[in-house]
Amino acid sequence: MGAREVGLPARARTDGLPERVTIWEVGARDGLQNESAVVPVEVKLEFLDRLAAAGLGVLEATSFVHPKWVPQLADAEDLLARLTRAEGVSYPVLVPNERGLDRALAAGVRHIAVFGSATESFAKRNLNRTLDEQFAMFEPVVARARAEGLDVRAYVSMCFGDQWEGPVPPAQVAAVGRRLMEMGCSQLSLGDTIGVATPGLVESVIGAVNAAGVPTSRVAVHFHDTYGQALSNTLAALRLGVTTVDSSAGGLGGCPYAESATGNLATEDLVWMLDGLGVETGVDLDKLADTSAWMAERLGRPSPSRVVRALRG
Amino acid sequence: MGAREVGLPARARTDGLPERVTIWEVGARDGLQNESAVVPVEVKLEFLDRLAAAGLGVLEATSFVHPKWVPQLADAEDLLARLTRAEGVSYPVLVPNERGLDRALAAGVRHIAVFGSATESFAKRNLNRTLDEQFAMFEPVVARARAEGLDVRAYVSMCFGDQWEGPVPPAQVAAVGRRLMEMGCSQLSLGDTIGVATPGLVESVIGAVNAAGVPTSRVAVHFHDTYGQALSNTLAALRLGVTTVDSSAGGLGGCPYAESATGNLATEDLVWMLDGLGVETGVDLDKLADTSAWMAERLGRPSPSRVVRALRG
Repeated sequence: MGAREVGLPARARTDGLPERVTIWEVGARDGLQNESAVVPVEVKLEFLDRLAAAGLGVLEATSFVHPKWVPQLADAEDLLARLTRAEGVSYPVLVPNERGLDRALAAGVRHIAVFGSATESFAKRNLNRTLDEQFAMFEPVVARARAEGLDVRAYVSMCFGDQWEGPVPPAQVAAVGRRLMEMGCSQLSLGDTIGVATPGLVESVIGAVNAAGVPTSRVAVHFHDTYGQALSNTLAALRLGVTTVDSSAGGLGGCPYAESATGNLATEDLVWMLDGLGVETGVDLDKLADTSAWMAERLGRPSPSRVVRALRG
Repeated sequence: MGAREVGLPARARTDGLPERVTIWEVGARDGLQNESAVVPVEVKLEFLDRLAAAGLGVLEATSFVHPKWVPQLADAEDLLARLTRAEGVSYPVLVPNERGLDRALAAGVRHIAVFGSATESFAKRNLNRTLDEQFAMFEPVVARARAEGLDVRAYVSMCFGDQWEGPVPPAQVAAVGRRLMEMGCSQLSLGDTIGVATPGLVESVIGAVNAAGVPTSRVAVHFHDTYGQALSNTLAALRLGVTTVDSSAGGLGGCPYAESATGNLATEDLVWMLDGLGVETGVDLDKLADTSAWMAERLGRPSPSRVVRALRG
């Protein structure tokens, strides 16, 4: 008999956690852009519909990055034109630059995200820009988006370590985050792009961000599970009062075998913990695991999520 | 470039954690007994030597359970006769009953562990006994071992949920634990055999065990990673003052793909977190990951440890 059939996990609260957490589901964007397979638009549409039906309220749908860089998401316009938006669900879209913003506005998008770096090395490699040039690129994007009434999230990558630079000073992350918030972004998603963080560092970085004037209510966390640390780090962030957590259904974007196991925290593993802790998410774990098992079949390989493998393997 | 080469994870302490944690390495026993392959004794001996060289101070070496039940460990006498005991390293052995104790004493073992259940259902299925009969079986084992000057650890399985009974009342776990400690066991290892626990429940169970008279200094935790929760649960236990954590090198005992991903917490994933938190373990993570990569080759399949896959995949 399975654990869920006998009422597990048992609920037991602990002090100092929020009552409710918003899961920012990135599977359709951050997940699929890192899968080698290009998924047909019909499958993406069904995936998003199923995620909404499982109770997820924020579904990052796609990206307007140039198709040359991310062919997996080259169907962004087509996807958004055919998407049935579920009541009460937000469908933010990643926008790298002004050209991307034009496309997003033409597609009727109301919620965008920009994607910056905390380090010079990653800004150079990912955007071919310095940190100052990255800010100069985002400034008009955020200003125009805000003038059009759009909500803008700011991702910051490499907040907890960089594979070229090593440790990243928390004050540097805070300075980058503050600059993006001053432009008019409403939320800062602190990314552990290479999955190296541990819980004390999570506290240091969020503390530095707070000290730079960005309150915890504006902070989201985005952990990758490369070294198995994503859920412990999330727990540390929740204890500080963070209430928005990024994750990817089924751990999409991470290969379960290879060296490049750089996937996002799996939404199911997060929901298992939050269910056990009595923290509300609105997510139906069984429906979600069904969806991820279905998507794993489409991708032709097992899900990297331990919960999905245990419940549906 | 790899994360380790640029000094990651960065160290950042957090309040309320112990300065030092003892890792009780169970890979050679709990790990290998759950692998389908039977590993030759020479490989086990090299494995134990390499684990000691990587700085692990407690190596659960094997089990004197009847070979009919665990053919993987049928070579227990041979292994112990040929084992070179490293200076300062303890090599405890699992002993299920009086016959097992006879074998352990004959082999010169100085440190044993008994393996009990917190629930009637698992006692019935694993030992074919009621809880009362389990205590009656252990009583003479512990008494004789103590009379011979041996140290005895008590494992309690299904402390956080049972796949037949569902939730397990913390007071029941505490009553079982207290009874085993009253017999003369020196340490209680609280096992999440099916991997369902979440951090609030960890606090509840340890609190109940404390209330029953067993201090945290006598408590160890033994989490399985079936649902990806093992490391978060460990963090919760460390915050309560637990200083002994069971884990398995490379996550041995868990299949990285299948439904039965019921492996132990991987020692590498634990050490990554503790290194980042500045908690001393004495373990050299790179040597340990080399050892687990080597053992994964012997087993002919990738390691379930995310750290091993990321560093050596």
